[in-house]
Amino acid sequence: MSDSLTRASGIVFDLDGTLVDSTYVHTLCWWEALQQFGHERPMAAVHHTVGMGADHLLDHLLGDGRDRSQDDAVTAAHDVLFSTWHERLHPLPSARTLLNWCRDAGLTVGLASSGGQRDLWAMMDVLDHPDFDVIVTGDDVDSTKPDTDVLDAALDRAGLDAEDVLVVGDSVWDMQAARRAGVVPVGVATGGTSAPELESAGAELTYQDLAALLDALQEAKPAPVAGTWGARP
Amino acid sequence: MSDSLTRASGIVFDLDGTLVDSTYVHTLCWWEALQQFGHERPMAAVHHTVGMGADHLLDHLLGDGRDRSQDDAVTAAHDVLFSTWHERLHPLPSARTLLNWCRDAGLTVGLASSGGQRDLWAMMDVLDHPDFDVIVTGDDVDSTKPDTDVLDAALDRAGLDAEDVLVVGDSVWDMQAARRAGVVPVGVATGGTSAPELESAGAELTYQDLAALLDALQEAKPAPVAGTWGARP
Repeated sequence: MSDSLTRASGIVFDLDGTLVDSTYVHTLCWWEALQQFGHERPMAAVHHTVGMGADHLLDHLLGDGRDRSQDDAVTAAHDVLFSTWHERLHPLPSARTLLNWCRDAGLTVGLASSGGQRDLWAMMDVLDHPDFDVIVTGDDVDSTKPDTDVLDAALDRAGLDAEDVLVVGDSVWDMQAARRAGVVPVGVATGGTSAPELESAGAELTYQDLAALLDALQEAKPAPVAGTWGARP
Repeated sequence: MSDSLTRASGIVFDLDGTLVDSTYVHTLCWWEALQQFGHERPMAAVHHTVGMGADHLLDHLLGDGRDRSQDDAVTAAHDVLFSTWHERLHPLPSARTLLNWCRDAGLTVGLASSGGQRDLWAMMDVLDHPDFDVIVTGDDVDSTKPDTDVLDAALDRAGLDAEDVLVVGDSVWDMQAARRAGVVPVGVATGGTSAPELESAGAELTYQDLAALLDALQEAKPAPVAGTWGARP
């Protein structure tokens, strides 16, 4: 049993690939957007940049010495292509169960995504509008993951101390940002990045999926059963 | 320098995710095909079954105790959806250079894929019709990877001894089949499965991409330069 799970008073989730099954769709949409502007990159390379915002993602795929004059157009192309998928996306298994359990357990629950506002409400529709205490997107900050801005903003707005917060994500950028922000990096392999890769990027704990994380949380932190408040020993 | 690379007299390639950048497209097409028949599976789970043929893939995703009456229809749906992508696919970087180098170096060059004939010639178009000594697809055998049938058939038709053959693939199923067939399993991380995952599945050697494999082969096995036959010491 992890002391970090027992001690946590807050939990901050990444969105794409962590709560919504969208990482592979982002991969295809960035691949296609890059193609349309003459940049051919292997899909696996694109996949492993998803989780950063457009600012860092294009640096990684095209080099930071590039002509940046097309960046906005490439990013807009990705956003247009991704929007065509909004209706077809699904939550990752156990996402809603886990979010509800975290609320019932008294945790402060946040969302910190490198993605923009444009997709946020569509993804909230996919998740059936969970009750987050705080939501921060890439549009709210100067720099996305692996920088700490979205996590810092979420902690600040929620009034949480970093060391008592679990940050759950599926990408190496989530783990790097969490490690830098001083929170507990928790990796889930739901975006196609394996547990060993997440550990190499700084994950303190890794789980195959959200159901396994929920099992670990329930073991570490027995939650009050709804309607039985006061009955716990 | 690897003795296995130096000793090799033959090299057998997987197709999807190894020579052609199609693993992520297969993932989306199987995901969509399963959806159309009422089976929702996370995309990362689908991704990690790509590399098997439809026979084993559906067992892994739906359980081998399922009603199999829809298998042919689900598989046909995948094939139809994948066909819409034929024109948009690209070779993985260095695929054609590596295949040409292997020919120049005197290696017997084979292709052994779990995929079917339907996609084969479209993928040969993508690769600009390389000169394989032998081609075996999932339609030629009773059982696809991780069983050894496609590799056994390729070795048999090419008259190669297993221990002198490199088998290059991007999936755990390629590595498992190669290990069982007694050939040298060589993993490339071009399909989004990481080198550590490929090593866990039995890879003797792993490379980030085909360019890195080509570098290693050139170091292990100096090849005659075209037109200078007889000039080597």
